[in-house]
Amino acid sequence: MITSAIIIIGNEILSGRTLDLNSNFIAKRCSKIGIKLCEIKIIADNYKEIIKEVLKASKKYKHVFVTGGIGPTHDDITALAIARAFKRKLVLNKKAKELLKKHYENSNFELNKSRMKMAYLPSRATLIANPVSAAPGFKIKNVWVMAGVPKIMQSMFLESVEKKLKKGKIIFSRTVKVKKPEGDIADTLYKINKEYSDLDIGSYPFYKPPDIGTNIVFRCSNKKILEKVIKKFCKLLKNRDIEFTVD
Amino acid sequence: MITSAIIIIGNEILSGRTLDLNSNFIAKRCSKIGIKLCEIKIIADNYKEIIKEVLKASKKYKHVFVTGGIGPTHDDITALAIARAFKRKLVLNKKAKELLKKHYENSNFELNKSRMKMAYLPSRATLIANPVSAAPGFKIKNVWVMAGVPKIMQSMFLESVEKKLKKGKIIFSRTVKVKKPEGDIADTLYKINKEYSDLDIGSYPFYKPPDIGTNIVFRCSNKKILEKVIKKFCKLLKNRDIEFTVD
Repeated sequence: MITSAIIIIGNEILSGRTLDLNSNFIAKRCSKIGIKLCEIKIIADNYKEIIKEVLKASKKYKHVFVTGGIGPTHDDITALAIARAFKRKLVLNKKAKELLKKHYENSNFELNKSRMKMAYLPSRATLIANPVSAAPGFKIKNVWVMAGVPKIMQSMFLESVEKKLKKGKIIFSRTVKVKKPEGDIADTLYKINKEYSDLDIGSYPFYKPPDIGTNIVFRCSNKKILEKVIKKFCKLLKNRDIEFTVD
Repeated sequence: MITSAIIIIGNEILSGRTLDLNSNFIAKRCSKIGIKLCEIKIIADNYKEIIKEVLKASKKYKHVFVTGGIGPTHDDITALAIARAFKRKLVLNKKAKELLKKHYENSNFELNKSRMKMAYLPSRATLIANPVSAAPGFKIKNVWVMAGVPKIMQSMFLESVEKKLKKGKIIFSRTVKVKKPEGDIADTLYKINKEYSDLDIGSYPFYKPPDIGTNIVFRCSNKKILEKVIKKFCKLLKNRDIEFTVD
């Protein structure tokens, strides 16, 4: 089992100003490549908090995905905090400098002192390519640090991070959409969950009147078992004359 | 300073199947009533994890807002876990039972054994009214436990939770939308941030070509200081012939 955690750094998420989209994107990709996401934590742009949380997650999980706080402004303190967390110095990374130079030579913007800050990374960090705006993310030990802007983060993850991750056991997932509130099928679910306790069976009611019902999500690494359980569950629903569809 | 944390319980968020909307809703409300949200944690439907995280947050913060896992199905383990966390028994709450009875008498659905499970709550818990589907949330010590379905959670928060929360010092917020990437204004921001280090100044680039720029968010509990700093910042931008709008 390849485990992971996400740490989102951003006052703007905690104030409610911005809806966090990064963790959902990473969560989906992790599911796709068989990496188990165990927790998501959203913390403030706070030096000590970043150090504490990154170290804790780095010890506990195989991978830690961090987003936010690697830009050129005063509130971008992630690189410095993570350098300190791993007792490394923040140094001018020559490769990062070259990438920035090349990018800004071909743009209408100037590679000023503020922007050059983005080339200062923890010593011995590996770069994460940024196909959108050049300023790289970085990897240190098992911690992957990416931009906070969703479009940039996504391109970093897809083009660079994901290619370097070892794939795990894929968990297949199927959803049975039942046209009944979950209270009406809870007993049937108990039965099937007890018989197949290895499976992860989630019950997610939806409530958009007149569309009221429950999505039952079955997750399992063995496709055959998954199909067998789905079949059995559907039979139980049919026996009770309950309408459903299978995705 | 009234502090708080959010704990979202849900495998469906960690698998990426569902985008978490609850924490953004609560974050916005907290900002509105002057409660500082210090962290958000999203964890699995796991008994031990729930106990550990709820206890930790309950000790650290004035309020803890929990969503998810209080329905009638096998994967709804939040009430039991939180009862155990605070060394209380899970008991049939008479008031909750009455609420459910009344609700289901007026509906097409039956108050069966599965649904009755939703009336079993930690002993001495206070109910949180559920204007949508009756099954109540509950409060135990400083932990507010609400439904996971956004529509239901929101009604619980607005109609019941928020009215009982003591309001804190409101943090006023204003945004200056600058039509330049943040690298171009980082030095101006450094200057203003150094002069007013008490203020929370966040720099949030947006990248939707051709719309490229930066939102600068100023947050402060003192409206006069806030306006003064905004004025000063705008003057600095004008001096540099940089376009902007103020929200």
